[in-house]
Amino acid sequence: MENQNKVSMGTMDGLQSIEKEMKMANQRTAKSRELLARLLAFALTFVAAILFGINKQTKVVPVLITPTLPLNVTVSAKWHYLSAFVYFVASNAIACSYAALSILFRFTSKGESNILFKMIIILDTLMVALLFSGNGAAMAIALMGYKGNSHVQWKEVCSVFGKFCDQGAVAIGLSQLGSLVFLLLALMSALSSNKSSSNY
Amino acid sequence: MENQNKVSMGTMDGLQSIEKEMKMANQRTAKSRELLARLLAFALTFVAAILFGINKQTKVVPVLITPTLPLNVTVSAKWHYLSAFVYFVASNAIACSYAALSILFRFTSKGESNILFKMIIILDTLMVALLFSGNGAAMAIALMGYKGNSHVQWKEVCSVFGKFCDQGAVAIGLSQLGSLVFLLLALMSALSSNKSSSNY
Repeated sequence: MENQNKVSMGTMDGLQSIEKEMKMANQRTAKSRELLARLLAFALTFVAAILFGINKQTKVVPVLITPTLPLNVTVSAKWHYLSAFVYFVASNAIACSYAALSILFRFTSKGESNILFKMIIILDTLMVALLFSGNGAAMAIALMGYKGNSHVQWKEVCSVFGKFCDQGAVAIGLSQLGSLVFLLLALMSALSSNKSSSNY
Repeated sequence: MENQNKVSMGTMDGLQSIEKEMKMANQRTAKSRELLARLLAFALTFVAAILFGINKQTKVVPVLITPTLPLNVTVSAKWHYLSAFVYFVASNAIACSYAALSILFRFTSKGESNILFKMIIILDTLMVALLFSGNGAAMAIALMGYKGNSHVQWKEVCSVFGKFCDQGAVAIGLSQLGSLVFLLLALMSALSSNKSSSNY
């Protein structure tokens, strides 16, 4: 009887140890996933900010004042000419700086600070708001640049500034991917910490 | 000694009962706060969508073809002329419909479903992304309408369509408040369910 008890105690200990190891392995996998997502968010928003921040094009355009007097005019497109693009570059710069800092704090700090974790949940969600807002603004102006609008008589400009528009479109695409990664990070933290609670 | 034990057991029971009551009272307060926030989010996005959805202005503008031939032209501004405004109205319509449904499901369902609660966390965060994106787009085009931009030769139109612009600005302001309430709701759920966990 005593031996039986000892065997069953040993089995219990073994099960507990396996459970503990599985839990730690799960935590390691989750941390690796999070690190990967944060690195991706950093890379995407960093490249988007740089690509748009160095985006400019200068072109010589022939202008006909009278049929006999053609005139060459130099025109430029720069990202800081439009406030929506300034907001876009600023929001991506803030998001990539935050992504770098969050990697630094989450993966180099010793122990697990609950306050730090809460701060990261708040800031992840704020980055979602900031990036989606910046992307929405840049996308609206970029679409206007591509297509124009006859009702307000705003002409499309991308047939003149093709290179500027293409580079801008790539940057907006990358930033949109970056904002989706931040959305995923915000949802990961909110859902993983909510395994049993269903009350606010 | 036995009496002393009984007294101490009685005190423990009393303390546990007080603790339970306090927990229930806290849950009730949190639920009331959540209901209030959801009602506010619904009202703000609903009014924003309606205000912009009925927004139009028609005006007769004098156009000088030659100094001796003035011509009166009828011009119109309608919200669906610009894709950014269509996106704005659609995002607010989706957000207010979701707010109404979330009130219905959260406050009429019997018992506490964990899956429902997770769904609501996901959808709250998606609404933050949707609304901030819609507001960013509408704000960028609205600002262009107010100020214009000499670099791309897009002229301001709000001196002609003053009423349309003012009504649009109020709607965008209300929608921005609505998006802040959704942000608050998403943070409330993420943080309240994360009281001790600090691992993904």
